[in-house]
Amino acid sequence: MGRLTGGDPSLLRRINSAVVLHSLRGAQSPTLTDLTRITGLSRPTVEGVVEGLVEAGLVVESVPEEGEARRQGRPARRYRFRAEAGHLLGIEIGAHRVAVLISGLDGRIIGAGSRDVSETASADDRLDRVRSVVADVLRRTGVARSSLRAVGVGSPGIVEADGTVRLSTALPGWTGLPLGERLSRSFRCPVLVENDANAAAVAEHWKGAARDSDDIVFVLAGLSPGAGSLIGGRLHRGFGGAAGEIGALHLLGREVTPETLLSTTDEPLPPLDEQAVAEVFALAREGDEQACKAVDRYNQRLVHDVAALVLALDPELVVIGGWAAGLDGVLAPLRTELSRYCLRPPQVTLSMLGEAAVATGALRVALDHVEEQLFAVEGTATARR
Amino acid sequence: MGRLTGGDPSLLRRINSAVVLHSLRGAQSPTLTDLTRITGLSRPTVEGVVEGLVEAGLVVESVPEEGEARRQGRPARRYRFRAEAGHLLGIEIGAHRVAVLISGLDGRIIGAGSRDVSETASADDRLDRVRSVVADVLRRTGVARSSLRAVGVGSPGIVEADGTVRLSTALPGWTGLPLGERLSRSFRCPVLVENDANAAAVAEHWKGAARDSDDIVFVLAGLSPGAGSLIGGRLHRGFGGAAGEIGALHLLGREVTPETLLSTTDEPLPPLDEQAVAEVFALAREGDEQACKAVDRYNQRLVHDVAALVLALDPELVVIGGWAAGLDGVLAPLRTELSRYCLRPPQVTLSMLGEAAVATGALRVALDHVEEQLFAVEGTATARR
Repeated sequence: MGRLTGGDPSLLRRINSAVVLHSLRGAQSPTLTDLTRITGLSRPTVEGVVEGLVEAGLVVESVPEEGEARRQGRPARRYRFRAEAGHLLGIEIGAHRVAVLISGLDGRIIGAGSRDVSETASADDRLDRVRSVVADVLRRTGVARSSLRAVGVGSPGIVEADGTVRLSTALPGWTGLPLGERLSRSFRCPVLVENDANAAAVAEHWKGAARDSDDIVFVLAGLSPGAGSLIGGRLHRGFGGAAGEIGALHLLGREVTPETLLSTTDEPLPPLDEQAVAEVFALAREGDEQACKAVDRYNQRLVHDVAALVLALDPELVVIGGWAAGLDGVLAPLRTELSRYCLRPPQVTLSMLGEAAVATGALRVALDHVEEQLFAVEGTATARR
Repeated sequence: MGRLTGGDPSLLRRINSAVVLHSLRGAQSPTLTDLTRITGLSRPTVEGVVEGLVEAGLVVESVPEEGEARRQGRPARRYRFRAEAGHLLGIEIGAHRVAVLISGLDGRIIGAGSRDVSETASADDRLDRVRSVVADVLRRTGVARSSLRAVGVGSPGIVEADGTVRLSTALPGWTGLPLGERLSRSFRCPVLVENDANAAAVAEHWKGAARDSDDIVFVLAGLSPGAGSLIGGRLHRGFGGAAGEIGALHLLGREVTPETLLSTTDEPLPPLDEQAVAEVFALAREGDEQACKAVDRYNQRLVHDVAALVLALDPELVVIGGWAAGLDGVLAPLRTELSRYCLRPPQVTLSMLGEAAVATGALRVALDHVEEQLFAVEGTATARR
């Protein structure tokens, strides 16, 4: 605790550097005078820090616009954050598709790519597909692989802190796969693996339907459903990384799977066959009686599972994603059910990011990692607790 | 953020004071030299801070033991934290009982009292009962009312941040009651109201079955069941203070109440009649077939609800409390059920504090409040995030 009050010069430099970088990223090409005002630091400190950041390639003197340059006298130097000093990838590895997003250090997306993959593909084939989409996105955006600072990955299953998939019933060969380590071989930067529903929750909070709330539950509806939750703006992973695994909730005391609920015949749908599900939803939209009953059965189950999550966690907002199409029918019964049991029922809304949610969240996970290093203040404060 | 690096002298004084006080409380009558070493602060700083703490009555020079005093030369002055400089109350207001604990500023319990109360008692009568137990405990311990620094209260229901009970079905007249404000009239210190299951979770973490875990779910079994959870050592109240209200979970899709489940006849037990429940449990222990079936039905329901909480939150440990007697039968089926659905099933254990859990947690809530003021470092770090 003495360090709180004593002088640790390297910590101080790091904090000052983070404060200046943070201000630089928020302001429009500030001058040193601007930065001194914004940060409350002394002029010599700001000068020293900016010099260091320029050397590190994170900050550059910004070229003045034509009109401004011609004003009388020598204009004060202006600086800007070099978002192009590094890049990030957000990767979704799903049962039917892999998708990749790329951004600069400011998190703005500058490229994207995706390819379908068979739900029966082996882990090796699936990872090959990932590598080829990544290579394609890097080529098209002209970003060098060496410019990557962090890679985020969202994938179904319970993920260990080291990036190993502890369990995933949705993807063949996924359980036990050291996913982070396998992908690390393709990159020289950290690879961070996150459960897909968790990643989607982060994404909706970052730039989707949950921008205004810090306490949310995101439900990834599907044949292998899951949920992710933020508490006070932070991801709640649970002690073993298994929080929100409502797939298992489906089994509690009832043996009926989503494939059975959604069947229009006596036989359940083929396991994890999303195409068959899409057909049932399409039929229901056309008014087919059997299909409507099937969708109703599924919705009823979803409502029950979401209600259990809401009672346990008491979020401000529930975001329903996953099957973007067909699920709007679940909102009304969900709201009714929740208002029956909750005193202050959460708002319920559909995902805004749709099928981009998981990759977007994976990108945010990568960005968080890089920002923790660049803007070390938060990390410092956390370590201090 | 400038404040991080700039010099705010009053903040610095406060932090130094907290650091010294914290060290004083942890050490055995340290000398100024000890404190200088422990805190890493300068000798003049430590002297100034200790002087201020002595003036504030929080620290006193400790009288040396006989042998020590007679050693040659003048011994260095030693100091100790004055736990007796203030007192705290932890109050449980339940359906059938009110209980009060009292401690010094170190949280060590120095007195206790309790009285039964009818489950049909009005809010006014129940509060009168609380006041009389408090007066009795203060009298017996010789603590002046003016010495109280904070009062914690644990009670069934959803509690607002201001101490108003938003909903409580267990206690007549409790819904809408400004409980904190009503009790504040009897005290000149802050009164903090917490949900009973939340308080019990805090208590088991503090000095009960959950001392070794920061991620726990505490289940308060009963006719009006509830749950409280700690995530990373902090109480998770939920956005609207309703997290863990599994009483409502009982209703999801099923209309059967605990009173019906536990009945040995065609008629449900009288509402909230814990005495009738105790009789059913006693009969079951004697091997009565109807009673055993009734207890099994209740246990099955409890297992389902706890499993739902566990899937949502993924705790390290589940503590079952409330009905201390009779519930040991729930541990085995609960463990079996959880290991079926959880990859890393949480440990499951019975409450260690039993019927003292709620009042003990209420005391800890009061202690947290006082410590936040005394040891301001944590509060400061939190505000800084």
